[in-house]
Amino acid sequence: SNWDPSQSVLVNIGNHFDLKTSVFQAPRRGIYSFSFHVVKVYNRQTIQVNLMQNDYPVISAFAGDQDVTREAASNGVLLMVEREDRVYLKLERGTLMGGWKYSTFSGFLVFPL
Amino acid sequence: SNWDPSQSVLVNIGNHFDLKTSVFQAPRRGIYSFSFHVVKVYNRQTIQVNLMQNDYPVISAFAGDQDVTREAASNGVLLMVEREDRVYLKLERGTLMGGWKYSTFSGFLVFPL
Amino acid sequence: SNWDPSQSVLVNIGNHFDLKTSVFQAPRRGIYSFSFHVVKVYNRQTIQVNLMQNDYPVISAFAGDQDVTREAASNGVLLMVEREDRVYLKLERGTLMGGWKYSTFSGFLVFPL
Repeated sequence: SNWDPSQSVLVNIGNHFDLKTSVFQAPRRGIYSFSFHVVKVYNRQTIQVNLMQNDYPVISAFAGDQDVTREAASNGVLLMVEREDRVYLKLERGTLMGGWKYSTFSGFLVFPL
Repeated sequence: SNWDPSQSVLVNIGNHFDLKTSVFQAPRRGIYSFSFHVVKVYNRQTIQVNLMQNDYPVISAFAGDQDVTREAASNGVLLMVEREDRVYLKLERGTLMGGWKYSTFSGFLVFPL
Repeated sequence: SNWDPSQSVLVNIGNHFDLKTSVFQAPRRGIYSFSFHVVKVYNRQTIQVNLMQNDYPVISAFAGDQDVTREAASNGVLLMVEREDRVYLKLERGTLMGGWKYSTFSGFLVFPL
């Protein structure tokens, strides 16, 4: 299951983030900053979250604590993105029983190329 | 108790971050990036930190591990901010016995609107 | 041991990040955003990671959980940087038995001064 932004998109300038597919599609070539914090709620499984660029994992984050009610798998990166590249989050391992509540996913253009 | 920046403000261009009230007040309308890492030190309580915009919570972060000497509640977000909006951190739950040492709170204008 | 970017540098516009010394050297004066997520793998030691500016620690992050296979020490900050300042990560305490795999270190110019 991928990122569900249905009730959580705070900013979507230019509408490059598709609310149905949960995929960001780059409007132009450049360096983008992406970061995410995915919160695991009451769940003893380890989760692994991948930041995907065109179906390839770029970076990963993990949350595997067993005694914590809420724990975040967080990471962030600068990426060289081509026009129309797709960037999105993928839950590679584990499940999010409580859904994507409290989770965030942000990206913006640092500078165009 | 809110964020205490007294000894920890590293950058404050334009003086839009009020060191007395610990509140960032936006100089102009635009998209801002905010992120924070609030560190809990030797404390078995769960903490919840809210990023507030004009008295409304926008995102939350949690730290609740019982066996760790230092643990961070982290999150970040892009926000659409109106001129003179106030943005600040609020400790919604728990206490920070060691104060805000090691904690960071950063924001900058991504682009104006 | 400092950050080893040998297989992990995703973006290095301008070649201001030296792949041999693992040090970012600022091409010009300005406000930069830096963030890092250093992942501890199968390691019961507490680690402390410092973000260094010209041999001085600016911010720290910790990971000290004993029962977790992967845990990140994360933080981020805006820094006022002079031309030719050096910024890098330093493992102040503990060891990274699994190396810097999954770890990220990102920086970019927010605005010049």
